[in-house]
Parts: sequence; structure tokens; C-alpha cells
Amino acid sequence: MKYSDQLQNLGTETAFAVSAQAKEWAEKGNKVYPFHLGDINLPTPENIVEATIKSIKDGLTGYCPSEGIFSLREALANDVGLKRGVNYDPDNVAVQPGGKPTIGKFISSILNPGDEILYPNPGYPIYESQIEYQGGRAVPYSYTQTDSGFDIDIEKFKNSINDKTVAIIYNNYQNPISAESSEREMNDIAQIAIENDLWVLSDEAYFEIIYEGEAKSIVSIPGMKERTVILYTFSKKFAMTGWRVGGSIGPKEIIKRIAKFNVNAESCTTHFIQNAMVEALNGDQTGSIEILNKLRDRRDAAVKGLNAIDGIDISAPRTTFYLFPNVTRVMNRKGMQSVEELQSGALTKANVSFCTRDHFGRAQNDEDDYYIRLAYSGISTDNIAEGLANLKNYFEEK
Amino acid sequence: MKYSDQLQNLGTETAFAVSAQAKEWAEKGNKVYPFHLGDINLPTPENIVEATIKSIKDGLTGYCPSEGIFSLREALANDVGLKRGVNYDPDNVAVQPGGKPTIGKFISSILNPGDEILYPNPGYPIYESQIEYQGGRAVPYSYTQTDSGFDIDIEKFKNSINDKTVAIIYNNYQNPISAESSEREMNDIAQIAIENDLWVLSDEAYFEIIYEGEAKSIVSIPGMKERTVILYTFSKKFAMTGWRVGGSIGPKEIIKRIAKFNVNAESCTTHFIQNAMVEALNGDQTGSIEILNKLRDRRDAAVKGLNAIDGIDISAPRTTFYLFPNVTRVMNRKGMQSVEELQSGALTKANVSFCTRDHFGRAQNDEDDYYIRLAYSGISTDNIAEGLANLKNYFEEK
Repeated sequence: MKYSDQLQNLGTETAFAVSAQAKEWAEKGNKVYPFHLGDINLPTPENIVEATIKSIKDGLTGYCPSEGIFSLREALANDVGLKRGVNYDPDNVAVQPGGKPTIGKFISSILNPGDEILYPNPGYPIYESQIEYQGGRAVPYSYTQTDSGFDIDIEKFKNSINDKTVAIIYNNYQNPISAESSEREMNDIAQIAIENDLWVLSDEAYFEIIYEGEAKSIVSIPGMKERTVILYTFSKKFAMTGWRVGGSIGPKEIIKRIAKFNVNAESCTTHFIQNAMVEALNGDQTGSIEILNKLRDRRDAAVKGLNAIDGIDISAPRTTFYLFPNVTRVMNRKGMQSVEELQSGALTKANVSFCTRDHFGRAQNDEDDYYIRLAYSGISTDNIAEGLANLKNYFEEK
Repeated sequence: MKYSDQLQNLGTETAFAVSAQAKEWAEKGNKVYPFHLGDINLPTPENIVEATIKSIKDGLTGYCPSEGIFSLREALANDVGLKRGVNYDPDNVAVQPGGKPTIGKFISSILNPGDEILYPNPGYPIYESQIEYQGGRAVPYSYTQTDSGFDIDIEKFKNSINDKTVAIIYNNYQNPISAESSEREMNDIAQIAIENDLWVLSDEAYFEIIYEGEAKSIVSIPGMKERTVILYTFSKKFAMTGWRVGGSIGPKEIIKRIAKFNVNAESCTTHFIQNAMVEALNGDQTGSIEILNKLRDRRDAAVKGLNAIDGIDISAPRTTFYLFPNVTRVMNRKGMQSVEELQSGALTKANVSFCTRDHFGRAQNDEDDYYIRLAYSGISTDNIAEGLANLKNYFEEK
């Protein structure tokens, strides 16, 4: 009895190891300030909870279509289309048990062995894992730090494309670095995709976690809608990470194929939850606005706390619930050469738990600076202030 | 922009086409007697619904571990172990969003390209689909009709094994034919697995849909627990098909790998549903007993209705909620050579909708008889009697 050789190419989310460390430290009686979690410690809006309970009581407990119930596909087509300035109809939508399933199913729909896919690095580690597990080559593109955030290194991006490239994974409003494309950057990427006739997976998990102004999707650029699959999730906007509901939205022909994977993988997404998501999209939005307001307060508290640390200088991103400070000066002061050492030191010396750059895809050779990632979605503003005051002491210590 | 070549090896559940036909016929104003659905039109037990609502209100709406919450893994290990006379602990369990995900993830864990897996045919069509999609060879084994049901053709089974064979998919209490192994047959299969050092996927979706007497699992045979992954689902016993919760139960080393696919595929199964499943397993069982009693009444009504038809002779299976009558004599009388013709005729002439043998894996060359599959889980006893009286008229017509 053997295992599949292909398992050696399957990655994981190493951030779970940080959760385990934090839990162990807490179990020893320490108060841990949890900045490692991309989870949200806020309740799901009441109207969504009530719609779910009603759907269960109405008996929506049997199977439903693999591609999702019609009313939810219709509501998603309308909502996602409207907010992006494009037209979708229900056949453009396949409901999924979360945002994540779209990654694997998109790749399965388009990849042949040896094909190359460009993906952001640092970035969500499942991109790299799924591309390589499925027999493709995961080609990283990277970011350069600017005064206000991060830009994609477009020259490197362009030079990474060859005749084996079949797709780009694009995660504007990016986890972990909170990067956001300028109009020009988004246009550059769209033009590269069009010129090279590439598929695009647009991971829009944080498209509605925007604290000031408007969001823009790459599908709104002419020529993009017909080559782009959007990863949609209810998880962030409605504080529903553990509910597992989302969708794949894109051209009908690829959505049909993605829905065929639904038949083979899990039959359908929980029926009564799908029904309640129509209320989430079309009903009262007070709950999601309150969530966004709370997250904005936390962002402000976290940016303030980090900037109070000597050697850290970070501007407030307009999006996501992550901060990705450069800690090179802190590391140099402490004489450290491993960001993992800084991370475990922060846990045991300051009770502060966070992830590092190394949890978000393989580090590349040309990286000179050290970064850590703090999530502020799972911690109150008071605890943010307390935790970062502790962190200041530890980081400023030689 | 191209699609993956491997999509040509991905199958589907063609039974969904029958649902579509039935729906269309009903929309024309006809009363359809639905025997095509493997769904259950009975409510989920009240204590499970209440536990779910409490779990949502308690805020179990965030992420949970990919392998499942500890309390559910513990409850499943205890319940599944106890009912099979073996010992499992929580590390033997990975929670899944339904029964089906275990099929693909088991195969992904053990298959290398060109490996062969034996699977039942007629059988659940996703076995064939997942084996071939993942680059394996799906080798069918078949059944011979007996006076009381169906036996596995053990000689053919043995002769199908060669040095490329890596696993057997075994679905005792079988969909669609309701076959059940004798002690001897189960032992024969276990010995073949042991002698050839094969993995076994034991699809036990209907292990607790047993109307008389006890169920027995192949894991109870010495030497089997260490090579077997059980597909467990809450769907049937608790009338929860649309909830999407189940589990993979087996040796720790393979369960660890299956859980790694969870990280990559969907993060976790709905958190509050997992929590409620502890109540489903450990709480009051009145609801599941009532479901079983209702299904038994339906079985009896359906067997009676079918045996009233000239040319059909079927005994009552002790398990599942399917009947798989041989309709060869009916076909001969009607001068038909396509069971699909019989199926569409039954819909438009008798308002009775059912699946056929052809919806459950590719028909093999050596099949001489025609079979149809009737599910009685989605139709009341009164409608069973009415529908089968209609069917009698149509089937007995020349």
C-alpha cells in the first residue's frame, strides 16, 4: 500500500502552525494578542442568521443543484455585476462551499501538465500549492515597496510570460500585503492578459473590504470579462468565515466546467445556507456596514500602534484587514537573521502572535527585507493597543 | 485560452438529466411520481435543527480546523467504532462537507498514473469518474442476480486484479442495486485485499439504513482496519442530504493526507453544522428511528407495487432506499431494446419517473438483462401505490 507521489507537490497553509503555537502559549496561562488569524471575531449579521434559521425550518434540507440554487445565482450575478459595472446572468455563476474551492477548480479547468501560471508572491499559499499539485509550474510575481504600499514589479511580470503561460492569478486588495493596483497597474495587467490570450483568476475576497472610496475590478476593463473568473466569498463582508459559502463567477463555458467539478467533489453547497445568502445580498446591509466600521477602527489602532515602534513606518492600507510592515530595521537592531526568531520571540516575550512573510509562498532569492503580517480582524481595538505596546517594548529592545 | 485535456475523463451524474426531464414534465401540469431521486422528503430531526440554531447563536461562525472540530471527530470515532466493533480515535477522523468528498480525496491520496482501482458497476457513477479523471484505470466488477438479490461475481473480481491494482472500492449496502454481502462474500473480498496488499474505500453511506437485523462493516475483519477508509455521511440516517456533512475514517497516516486536501480544497466544513452533529450522534435518536420506520413502510409499498406488475419479480432488500428490478420481460413484451425508451415512456404515459442501469456507470459488454432503479426516499407510501399502479398499466401494455 503506497501513497500518491503527487502528494509531495501539495502545499498547505503553514500559518496554522502559528495558531498552534499561540494556542499552546495561551494554554500555559498567558494572555495572547492574536494578530495571526485571518478570521473575524465579530458576529454574522442578525438578518442573515434569521434567514438561515427560517430556511432550515422551511425544510430546505435536501439536495439542490450542483451549480447552486437559481435564486442565489441570480442574486450573485446582479450584485457582483452591478458593483463591477458589468453584466452577468445566473449562468455565469457556480456557487461554492467558500471562496477557496474556486482556486482548485479554476486551475483544474484550464491547466495541462507543464503549463505555467503566474501568481502573487507573497500571496495566499494555496495558489502555489494547487498549481504545483496539479502538475503546473507556479511562476511567482512580486511587489516593490513604495511610500504608500506596494506595486507589482511589472517588468519582471512581463518577462515571466512565455508560450507555456496559460493564466494569471490576480489578487487585487491583496492578502497578505494589502497591495492595491493603481488604474495604470491594473490596465497593464489586463493588457498583458489580452495580448497573451491568458485566463485570469481574479481573487476578489477583499473587494468589499474597502475603508475609503470605491473598489474596481479587472473585469471592468474591456476584453477582460470574457477571460476572467472571479473568486467571490461571503466570508469577509458578512463575518461568515466558518459558514463556507462563495462562488465562481465568469464566462459561461468555464463556469459549466467548474460546476462539473462540483458534481464530482461535493454535490452542492449547503442548501439552506445558499437560500439565506439571497437575504445577505439583497436584504438590509446595516450589519455589513457595522463590520466594516469596526474593522476600520481596528486598522487605525493597529497602524498607530505599529508606527509608534522605532524602525517601523507603515501607511494605512485602504483595504483588507492585514498589515505587512517591513521589520528589517528591527531585525538589524536585534541582530537577528531569521524572521521566525522574531516571531517566536514576540510570542514568548510580548505575548503577541503574528505570521511572517514566510507563511505566504516560498521566499524568492532577490528579497532583501524582512516582513511580518498582522491581521486585525480577530482582535479588539483595546487589545490591539495593549498588544502593540508590548510589541514596541520587545521590538525596541536590543 | 484553452481548457484542460483531462476534463474529457471527468464524468458526471447523468441522473440529473432525469430530474430535469421530470421537472419539465411536471411544469406542463402533470403530477409526477418521483422515483428518480436519491433525496429524502422527510424533515431533519428536531433536536439536530435546534442544536444547529444554538450553535449559530453561540457564534460558531468562524473558521475551525481543516480536519474538523475535535468534539465531532471524537464523537464520530466513538460512534463509528462502536457500531463496527473496532477502535477509532479522533486522529482516525477527517470531517468532510458530505460523503462524496471522501471518494476524490481517498483516490488522490493513493493513486499514481496508470494504477488500477476496482469499483462496483452498476455503482455510484462518481467512482468511475474520479478514478479516470485522476489518471487511473477504473476496472469494473459486477454482480449476478440471485433469488434474493445480487452477489458479487468473485471469480471475475479475482481475475481483475494484477500488479497495477492499488485499491478496491467496496459499497456494501449498495446504491443502486441494494446488494448486501454474505459473510462469505465479505470475507472473500477482505482476503483478496489482504493477500494483494490493497487499499479499500468502504462506502458506508447506507450502513445505518438497515430495516431488519444488524449491519456489518468490512473493517471488522482482522487485517482490514489498517487498509480501509470508511466513507461516512450524515445524509441518509438523519435526512440531511442538503446539509453537506460527513467524514473520512481510517488509518491515521492516510487521514492526515486527506485532511491536507481539506486545507487545499475548502478550508473546513461549516463550523456550526459540525457542532450540531455531536448532538446528532450522541443525542436523542427518536428522529432517526422514525425516518427508518417511514422508509421501511415505503420499501414495503414499493416492493408490493412492483411485484403486482406482470413480468417483475423482486424481493425486499434489507437496506438502502432503492429497488433495482429486472425489466427484461417487460421490455420483451413491449418489443423495446432501449431501457431509455422505457424510462421516457413511463414518464409521459404513466407520470412515473425513475433512473435506469445506464445512470450508474458504463454498461459492460456481458450484460443481457435490463434494469431500472426506483428510489422510494422522496415519495409517500400513498403516491408509491398510485404511481406503481399507473406503471403497471404502462408496463403491461404491449
